[in-house]
Amino acid sequence: MEVTRRNFKSSLKEVYSAIEEADFLAIDGEFSGISDGPNVSALTNGLDTPEERYTKLKKHSMDFLLFQFGICTFTYDQAKSKYIIKPFNFYVFPKPFNRMSPDIKFLCQSSSIDFLAGQGFDFNKVFCHGIPYLNQDQEVQLREQMEEKRNQHANGMGTPSYISPSSSKGPAHVPDEHKDFINRVVEKVEGLFTNSEKTLDLEPCTGFQRKLIYQTLNWKFPKGLHVDTIETEKKERYIQVSKVDDEERKKMEQQKQEREQEELNDAVGFSRVIHAISKSGKLVVGHNMLLDVMHTIHQFYCPLPEDLQDFKEVTMCVFPRLLDTKLMGSTQPFKEHITNTSLAELEKQLNSCPFKAPQVETAEGFPWYDTAQEQLHEAGYDAYITGLCFISMANYLGSFLTPPKSYISARSKLIEPFFNKLFLMRIIDIPYLNITGPDLQPKRDHVLHVAFPKEWKTSDLYQLFSAFGNIQVSWIDDTSAFVSLSQTDQVQIAMNTSRYAESYRIQTYAEYIQGKQQQDEKKLGQTNKTWGEDGWVKPHYTSTAGSFGYCRGLRKRSISPGHGDQGSGELLIADGWSHYSHLDSTGSKKMKTDDASGQANAEAVESKTSEGWLKTTDVSDSASLSPVPDEESPDDTDPVNNADGTVTWQRASTGRAKKSQKSEKRKSEATDSAASLFEVPEVW
Amino acid sequence: MEVTRRNFKSSLKEVYSAIEEADFLAIDGEFSGISDGPNVSALTNGLDTPEERYTKLKKHSMDFLLFQFGICTFTYDQAKSKYIIKPFNFYVFPKPFNRMSPDIKFLCQSSSIDFLAGQGFDFNKVFCHGIPYLNQDQEVQLREQMEEKRNQHANGMGTPSYISPSSSKGPAHVPDEHKDFINRVVEKVEGLFTNSEKTLDLEPCTGFQRKLIYQTLNWKFPKGLHVDTIETEKKERYIQVSKVDDEERKKMEQQKQEREQEELNDAVGFSRVIHAISKSGKLVVGHNMLLDVMHTIHQFYCPLPEDLQDFKEVTMCVFPRLLDTKLMGSTQPFKEHITNTSLAELEKQLNSCPFKAPQVETAEGFPWYDTAQEQLHEAGYDAYITGLCFISMANYLGSFLTPPKSYISARSKLIEPFFNKLFLMRIIDIPYLNITGPDLQPKRDHVLHVAFPKEWKTSDLYQLFSAFGNIQVSWIDDTSAFVSLSQTDQVQIAMNTSRYAESYRIQTYAEYIQGKQQQDEKKLGQTNKTWGEDGWVKPHYTSTAGSFGYCRGLRKRSISPGHGDQGSGELLIADGWSHYSHLDSTGSKKMKTDDASGQANAEAVESKTSEGWLKTTDVSDSASLSPVPDEESPDDTDPVNNADGTVTWQRASTGRAKKSQKSEKRKSEATDSAASLFEVPEVW
Repeated sequence: MEVTRRNFKSSLKEVYSAIEEADFLAIDGEFSGISDGPNVSALTNGLDTPEERYTKLKKHSMDFLLFQFGICTFTYDQAKSKYIIKPFNFYVFPKPFNRMSPDIKFLCQSSSIDFLAGQGFDFNKVFCHGIPYLNQDQEVQLREQMEEKRNQHANGMGTPSYISPSSSKGPAHVPDEHKDFINRVVEKVEGLFTNSEKTLDLEPCTGFQRKLIYQTLNWKFPKGLHVDTIETEKKERYIQVSKVDDEERKKMEQQKQEREQEELNDAVGFSRVIHAISKSGKLVVGHNMLLDVMHTIHQFYCPLPEDLQDFKEVTMCVFPRLLDTKLMGSTQPFKEHITNTSLAELEKQLNSCPFKAPQVETAEGFPWYDTAQEQLHEAGYDAYITGLCFISMANYLGSFLTPPKSYISARSKLIEPFFNKLFLMRIIDIPYLNITGPDLQPKRDHVLHVAFPKEWKTSDLYQLFSAFGNIQVSWIDDTSAFVSLSQTDQVQIAMNTSRYAESYRIQTYAEYIQGKQQQDEKKLGQTNKTWGEDGWVKPHYTSTAGSFGYCRGLRKRSISPGHGDQGSGELLIADGWSHYSHLDSTGSKKMKTDDASGQANAEAVESKTSEGWLKTTDVSDSASLSPVPDEESPDDTDPVNNADGTVTWQRASTGRAKKSQKSEKRKSEATDSAASLFEVPEVW
Repeated sequence: MEVTRRNFKSSLKEVYSAIEEADFLAIDGEFSGISDGPNVSALTNGLDTPEERYTKLKKHSMDFLLFQFGICTFTYDQAKSKYIIKPFNFYVFPKPFNRMSPDIKFLCQSSSIDFLAGQGFDFNKVFCHGIPYLNQDQEVQLREQMEEKRNQHANGMGTPSYISPSSSKGPAHVPDEHKDFINRVVEKVEGLFTNSEKTLDLEPCTGFQRKLIYQTLNWKFPKGLHVDTIETEKKERYIQVSKVDDEERKKMEQQKQEREQEELNDAVGFSRVIHAISKSGKLVVGHNMLLDVMHTIHQFYCPLPEDLQDFKEVTMCVFPRLLDTKLMGSTQPFKEHITNTSLAELEKQLNSCPFKAPQVETAEGFPWYDTAQEQLHEAGYDAYITGLCFISMANYLGSFLTPPKSYISARSKLIEPFFNKLFLMRIIDIPYLNITGPDLQPKRDHVLHVAFPKEWKTSDLYQLFSAFGNIQVSWIDDTSAFVSLSQTDQVQIAMNTSRYAESYRIQTYAEYIQGKQQQDEKKLGQTNKTWGEDGWVKPHYTSTAGSFGYCRGLRKRSISPGHGDQGSGELLIADGWSHYSHLDSTGSKKMKTDDASGQANAEAVESKTSEGWLKTTDVSDSASLSPVPDEESPDDTDPVNNADGTVTWQRASTGRAKKSQKSEKRKSEATDSAASLFEVPEVW
């Protein structure tokens, strides 16, 4: 269903009920651009840390506009043994609500616009009929401005820029060139008092002239008139003067106020849909969805926090349960069957053996998407396809059970290992951003940081390291890059040979990070990290207030894993997250603590291993913290040279053992609740 | 005529000939936004200096896109006694030419987009079929990148990011997961050698896979193959392998190169139209055209210079003769008949007495614009209306002649006083930016600069100055504003009473400017200004190289005033301004010196007054310079309190004298060549 400004209000109920009844929903956004850097690859470095990547995306992507938002709800019909779907395709545009509403500026990237144009994207629909929206701050601001304007109008002084202090009490200062005009207006209004007309429409005029009229009429006719500015369809503004007694005047002003209030509610617009998703606590599926999530929060909720940890906590408020199909498809047991995880390719591959195309039916009154037609890059269609991919993959997991199951619900523990992990594009050794816990921190002891003159090119680096076998270069900026050696034992040799170099400088990755951290600590003084023997960094969080402020509240909640934190909504005011609205501006970090899935995840994993890497951590107690793989976790392997997963997969029907020999001891019985079977591997 | 990417090439000849035959042409641009500040009025201060305004516009407006460019050419038909018009409406969009071409990011302002949407603007047409363009630097860059790419492909190494130094000579390093894929490709190519097919189309694949294919095939089959990447309509890329002998291979590569060259020329696109206008030297008319001129230069020519003077000189290269109808309509003798100078209103008012609607006829094959329908804010229509306004006003000047003339040509000396002066929005006392000389510098001795805590509002300023009569507040930023007193003699009193104030600080305008100049001089050390007794600042330019480097060349040319510098084009290479391409990046300031109009202006004014303010100045000789009104110039009056012009206008038919008594002595005989009659007044 296509939703624009024209049918938004009338569709809202249908949207709400679709979300309410859904087992899960899939989302997708279309943006006016991706990166404002010189090119997209400059935005990403294969050895970014999650913090660096978040900071880059925030800085270089959030000025673009999310202008099409697709939602497809999926509701399983037991009787029909198929999903009933309701796809929505929302056109979204920050139409200024009135002259005082925020005048959003957004960036467009010509390559993205050209790409969408080639896909038949309808820009006229977005810009002419896009649904408006406001984030929390904007809503508050607009409300305040409206009140201020009302007060000003009551005093008859539009914008106070050329008024002597006495002018609101005395006659308006009318510049010579406008005197004739104003005198004619006064004559007309005097005429109104002597004739039988109720209202008088003045001709359209400039804002300055309207101000003069307001001032003059307020002074000349303090009683008996209601003066209002009307906008024609052509956006011309004119003044309407109405003859009224005191009671009528009050009533008209009250009506005007109510009209304004209604308009303000309309201005919140599409944000109400996001609020509904957020409140529902339903599983939200996306494909490569980090940017979708960031844009959604940024546009409809609040400015993105500076800090990655804060972002994770806000994310859990807005989307308590997320699943990224690109990450899922890149992970065992899917990875070995899927050669290309782009959405279109993933969908194609999930239609053939060993996967099965899911059975779905479009709900009555919704348009039917033909997957053969490939309406890709319409957000509603992409959301639909994403949902199909999720169903195929979820059901495939059922084939490992004894007995095999052909339908795996969105509430199954089997899919929990994939919850709240968002795919990280083009990072060599960190597959995902872990929204509900600390991120993976691979040992990068085969990596060197090289600084050099800006004239150097990649070929210079190849030459420099020609003695050390194959290398991989990850540019950081004009004068530095990471160079990954294929053999860790070459690192020290490379370091030694470069000791006396003058034109360039080599550091180990550890040295480089240490230097960076020292800089950061000067600013923040929060985090110390040391290298653990197992190859993962052990973070030792100091218990500084603020940094992990969001988490504390979250851990105090007890939530039933299957159903999310829907009950807690009652404790909160209607919009579900008002407590958070001033996070950035005031530093106050009160917020809704709706972390059902994180909690559920933690419990699920704890049943398997007391110190598993999925465990959420108590930040106020650094001693009890060990989010790294220990003896009970999968053994670590070299994340670059070993492309195999470390998790054992056992197909119930065949019983054949998969490649990895190392974690034999952790093979689980194939039961429906055996979340440990399907964990997301640390090793890519 | 509507021109998009689809018909651009086929229309170009018609565009060129329309420009070539025209008496003058009118232009108009539509932008994706106006100002990226919090709001447009924050961008403008009523007491900005021209330098400040230029800097603000450059900083806050150039990130928007000029995406519709209207040109209407006007050619007078003596036989029919009417103008024949050819309107063009170009849709312009920086479509990336290929993966290496600049990926332009542009800003959109939702209020502007919403406004255009309301006017029926077709965004799909812009984004899907907009004509591409390149500025000079981009053209050069793209050419270089193309050559680089050709060299890379010749070595079979797409992007050099994961290649060991030896890989171009040895086998490509194929990661395990792609080995099967590459082996299948090699098998297929081996098949090609044994069958009768000439070419083999591989299936679409990722860029990385294509790179592996290039590397592998180059190594395995160094001879006998031509490998090329083809893009499908769906933008999928696949590799085509062709069986060729050495000669065929060379020929195919040459053809490919020619194809690329042609494509590069196409990529220059719309910029060629601007080159043609520039070369023609024709009078270019616009309405409130400063932003149009800035955007045109910025988008199709070169990044805007830092310095206003440099901008003026670049402008004279691109548009040797400009006329702004908003300025013209705001000036005597038009000002007294025109109450609203917005384009639509101006056009309406110029249709009625004392003006006459001009006689025009649309050239055959061009769509007819109905002014009654008001297709305003389509650039082609706005350009057309602008031209009509110019004709009405020019012809009106003819009514002052003895005998009166009903047709005044675009080459008449009567309109020369309006040349190259661009309307300045919302500056109280400087009506225009003077492109061919120093700007007006009104004495602002009734103005105070006030600094105060950021909590202050306008009402606090009114209160502070309540003893000094009416004031006008011009906000600079959160903590400072200009306050104009109505009486200059109050200034000292206000200064005295504030002497011991702690929460705020008052400076005279002169003190403030002096402080600012001292800061600027620390940076540049170029300009000293002193206050002249006549109320205008006397600029004493030091003869610093660079600052006015453009001017020097201009003054050495001798150009016939009526026809511009068309001959000089022959001295230059074809595009007319290639010498200028590296202004910003290299500091070299060689450029085309096409300043017919400035020169003409100077001569016209010199015939009237030896030291008139219109005179262009010899910057290398500060002693000979006096661009301020002297005893022969109009007397100055208070620019704020006296709204009358100081120039005497004498209507030939009635002989009635206009208001001003002061410049009686300067009344001129009403002859066609009496440019002095119609000078643009200094006083607004």
